[in-house]
Amino acid sequence: MRVLILGGDGYLGWPTAMHLASAGHEVMVVDNYLRRRVMVEEDVEPLYPVPNLVERARKWQQITGREIVVQIGDLSRWEFVERVFKSFMPEAIVHYAEQPSAPYSMIRREAAALTINNNLGATANVIFAVKEHCPDAHIVKLGTMGEYGTPNIDIEEGWIDIEHNGRTEKFLYPRQAGSLYHTTKIMDTDLLWYYVRIWDLRVTDLMQGPVYGIFTDESECDESLLTIFSYDELFGTVLNRFIAQAVVGYPLTVYGKGGQTRGYLNIKDTLNCVRLAMENPANRGELRIFNQFTETFSVNELADKVREAGRRFGLDVRIKSMENPRKEKEEHYYNPKHTGLLDLGLVPNKLTCEELVRMMEYVSIHRDNIAHHKIFRGTKWA
Amino acid sequence: MRVLILGGDGYLGWPTAMHLASAGHEVMVVDNYLRRRVMVEEDVEPLYPVPNLVERARKWQQITGREIVVQIGDLSRWEFVERVFKSFMPEAIVHYAEQPSAPYSMIRREAAALTINNNLGATANVIFAVKEHCPDAHIVKLGTMGEYGTPNIDIEEGWIDIEHNGRTEKFLYPRQAGSLYHTTKIMDTDLLWYYVRIWDLRVTDLMQGPVYGIFTDESECDESLLTIFSYDELFGTVLNRFIAQAVVGYPLTVYGKGGQTRGYLNIKDTLNCVRLAMENPANRGELRIFNQFTETFSVNELADKVREAGRRFGLDVRIKSMENPRKEKEEHYYNPKHTGLLDLGLVPNKLTCEELVRMMEYVSIHRDNIAHHKIFRGTKWA
Repeated sequence: MRVLILGGDGYLGWPTAMHLASAGHEVMVVDNYLRRRVMVEEDVEPLYPVPNLVERARKWQQITGREIVVQIGDLSRWEFVERVFKSFMPEAIVHYAEQPSAPYSMIRREAAALTINNNLGATANVIFAVKEHCPDAHIVKLGTMGEYGTPNIDIEEGWIDIEHNGRTEKFLYPRQAGSLYHTTKIMDTDLLWYYVRIWDLRVTDLMQGPVYGIFTDESECDESLLTIFSYDELFGTVLNRFIAQAVVGYPLTVYGKGGQTRGYLNIKDTLNCVRLAMENPANRGELRIFNQFTETFSVNELADKVREAGRRFGLDVRIKSMENPRKEKEEHYYNPKHTGLLDLGLVPNKLTCEELVRMMEYVSIHRDNIAHHKIFRGTKWA
Repeated sequence: MRVLILGGDGYLGWPTAMHLASAGHEVMVVDNYLRRRVMVEEDVEPLYPVPNLVERARKWQQITGREIVVQIGDLSRWEFVERVFKSFMPEAIVHYAEQPSAPYSMIRREAAALTINNNLGATANVIFAVKEHCPDAHIVKLGTMGEYGTPNIDIEEGWIDIEHNGRTEKFLYPRQAGSLYHTTKIMDTDLLWYYVRIWDLRVTDLMQGPVYGIFTDESECDESLLTIFSYDELFGTVLNRFIAQAVVGYPLTVYGKGGQTRGYLNIKDTLNCVRLAMENPANRGELRIFNQFTETFSVNELADKVREAGRRFGLDVRIKSMENPRKEKEEHYYNPKHTGLLDLGLVPNKLTCEELVRMMEYVSIHRDNIAHHKIFRGTKWA
């Protein structure tokens, strides 16, 4: 399948590109290096340097003989989007091309504006490009479990039947997110759903939980193919951060009571989920929604698992509860459904002590690159 | 109260400015003439010329002795927004500053992008300006009944309690709009609701139905104070269009079966609703939602009323059913609640034959300005 990966330089974009190329798909990746630029501006560079996207694609081809075509440009600029779509005529689009950090979206007005403009602008342009140039193509959009927030009722897989005063209707499950970034993902869903109804697009919206991990099958052959790894408050997802903190003896930063529960998944499972969704496309006129995670954990449970893995690895991991800089429920009901991707054939890589130890081993190699002051700086939500 | 009216040049903005100034409030209006520019570009000028905003404010002051301060500028530019807020320090903000045409938002990609960027950009800047400069100010935001769409269950006033698998939660009423324009209003609501939760803003979101009418109490004293009146497919609301069509003998354009039902209100009631909401502000941390309309009618019912009024006025009004250029339900359940504004004291101006005849009389004076080819041009939704 000809697949266009938008945001192909990111934590998930690049491993997805390699994974889909390995599976025999024809892959083009697009990125404008927005995340790299923001990381430099905010003084939160990753654990180890990562070659640019052209360099990575070159290395990949040398090693595997498979091509990944690279286009560098800004998807919020229509002229660029149109050129990419016309030249490649994708059959599937994997859309990761968004400012992905919740804390960054809360840091100041300019960052919030960038998040709104970039995320909505790219999504709108993708929709219009598909309509004009490849209306039968399948858009696989990365949403987030954070769109649902933490409601007091079971979280269904995208849709809910509501009975009210003796009548019933099926609705998008009501959404109420915990950051501006997550709110832009709600807007994306609204936008996609509108144009699915009006133009009969095919869309899969993947409500993904926080991802952890470094290694994927395709990166095993050469270290230079490893994805970007962030351990800082802005771009590091919680489990990745905890691993880095454990390695340098920085107490694990548990915000408030630590009962915040989310659905997590291994980066390998992200790749499998995206591939399964892509290889089994939504129908024309369908907005198909999957909740993309494999296990739920509270922050306290994650911290305990990291401490346990640390013990195995020979680290004395401390846990420090601190005042919560975010505005969120610290204890709550959480019961999200997630059967859709399992039904498509997903075989989860569950979180094991071995996986955590392997991450600790690799992060330890680069421990001298970890700057303590980048781990936590207390970006306040309110 | 110091009230800042954003979009003060529009169909509702200018009459609101006069109404609130008459009621003794200190009024500043802001506009960038976006609607005027689009109307020229799209070749859909209004029924009669309307003086620019500075000229109208000057005339208003000559007649009433009351000042309305005018600022011309673009609210999607932060520097301008900040200057306005710092200089005026509003206690209330009435936010109409959005591209208001559903058909325009569907006409082509550029118009859709303009609608998204302008509407979201202005709303985000208003939120940030309130947070930074006047966190206690009350934002009165014009939403639309169109956010709800036409669900098969009763439409509540903004919120709904959902019972699911034995547990309950209160949610924003699920929204599913009928145009891109209406979808941007859903996004506005999401954005406002997020920052209400995080920053304890005070917000009233007015879910308004289609407005009709020309005259308000304050425009009676001088014709040059009359609001802009559109009879074209892009900017004319349905009843106003039908009046113009009746006057020039253009058959009333009923799309499809004509069973499309909406909640309507007289422009005088818009002003009263906005004033009542403003004078009775929402609490800090509250997103208060009112459904702003006074009566529901199907398109067929409206057409019949216009035909009846035409008979009284001496016109032979024809009705022509035509293929629906929009994608919408032509027959549907519709039962929206609307008690909040009545509880605040709203006394509705119901739709009467006399009101329609008076509109016909006035439109007749300008009948030579009506260009038949501007009435309907068949902008297709899909």
